Amino acid sequence: MRVRTEAKRDAILEAAAEVFLEAGFEGASMSQIAARAGGSKRTLYGYFPSKEELFVAMAHNVATSFLDPVVDALSQTEELPPVALQRFGEGILGFLCAPDSVRMWQTIIGVAGRSDAGAQFYEIGPSRGHEALAAFLKRQMDLERLPPADPHDAARHLMALLEAETLMPCLFGKLKAPSKKYLRATTERALQAFFRGYGNPGMP
Amino acid sequence: MRVRTEAKRDAILEAAAEVFLEAGFEGASMSQIAARAGGSKRTLYGYFPSKEELFVAMAHNVATSFLDPVVDALSQTEELPPVALQRFGEGILGFLCAPDSVRMWQTIIGVAGRSDAGAQFYEIGPSRGHEALAAFLKRQMDLERLPPADPHDAARHLMALLEAETLMPCLFGKLKAPSKKYLRATTERALQAFFRGYGNPGMP
Repeated sequence: MRVRTEAKRDAILEAAAEVFLEAGFEGASMSQIAARAGGSKRTLYGYFPSKEELFVAMAHNVATSFLDPVVDALSQTEELPPVALQRFGEGILGFLCAPDSVRMWQTIIGVAGRSDAGAQFYEIGPSRGHEALAAFLKRQMDLERLPPADPHDAARHLMALLEAETLMPCLFGKLKAPSKKYLRATTERALQAFFRGYGNPGMP
Repeated sequence: MRVRTEAKRDAILEAAAEVFLEAGFEGASMSQIAARAGGSKRTLYGYFPSKEELFVAMAHNVATSFLDPVVDALSQTEELPPVALQRFGEGILGFLCAPDSVRMWQTIIGVAGRSDAGAQFYEIGPSRGHEALAAFLKRQMDLERLPPADPHDAARHLMALLEAETLMPCLFGKLKAPSKKYLRATTERALQAFFRGYGNPGMP
């Protein structure tokens, strides 16, 4: 009986990240990745039944390691909403719009039409971000720092406002490697619109 | 001297739409498309230097033919913002989220990393939609039906609110062929958030 281990899975994901970055999604092969991870192709397929699924697991791994600190900061902060959300917005956009990240999202969306790997990624990636943001907003509403509203609607709308001038044009290649200054300014604009809509008694 | 004509270009785009729909982007070949359009591959390349650019031109053609009526209606309407924007939102989302459309956006985003065709499409597609929406909002502000604000920021934010629960999950394959009822309800939620943020003196 073959045993799957967490350590082996991690080694595969690390090898996959290297090979995909070097060769791109189309250019990378499962054989190459298996060799880089020091195992057989058969073992590799035991963990990931297709290149699409391996790619999405790799992207999820990268996203989690970048986003966990941003999400944790939001769940623990005692800062008022304008400060906490400005930090969150700049942090999450800095990751989402980095050139390597954009290539990952382009690839996932490109394969989403012919595999359900994209839907799985959405469930564990963007949906998890929404949950964390909704939990923060709910807490601020309970503390009466924000007027009551549906925290899930508010979270989805805030993410959309943040992505309007950033992620969307990046996905189409219209905007490339936006500067920190640009991301700070667009986050400010998005938060102005958000606070006009969802209110913020903590601000003058 | 070879002469490029609008009629020939239209014939190529029509043939391309058929072949891409049947075979998908990867499966379609320039030879097939040339044959279907009744011309040579050399002629085809005279109009479109790559399969990516032909695909994007085809997508733009399809998008324009669907969106022109929606955009024209918005530019001519005398209706109050809530009514006009509800119609606009449902119309544009119905097109953006239709299964054939989603496959087009997925393909364009998938190739955007390796060609500037995606950026060109963004310029003539989404950017044009934003312009039309900004012009409508500006007119409403001039008529004092909406309080003054930057109409371009407002347009981008409204599009983002409309796309939050619709286009984004569709791109990742998480949401498939959303019903008219779903699009009506998400448009209502997006407009509630928009009007809370950008105001609407025309409503009680």
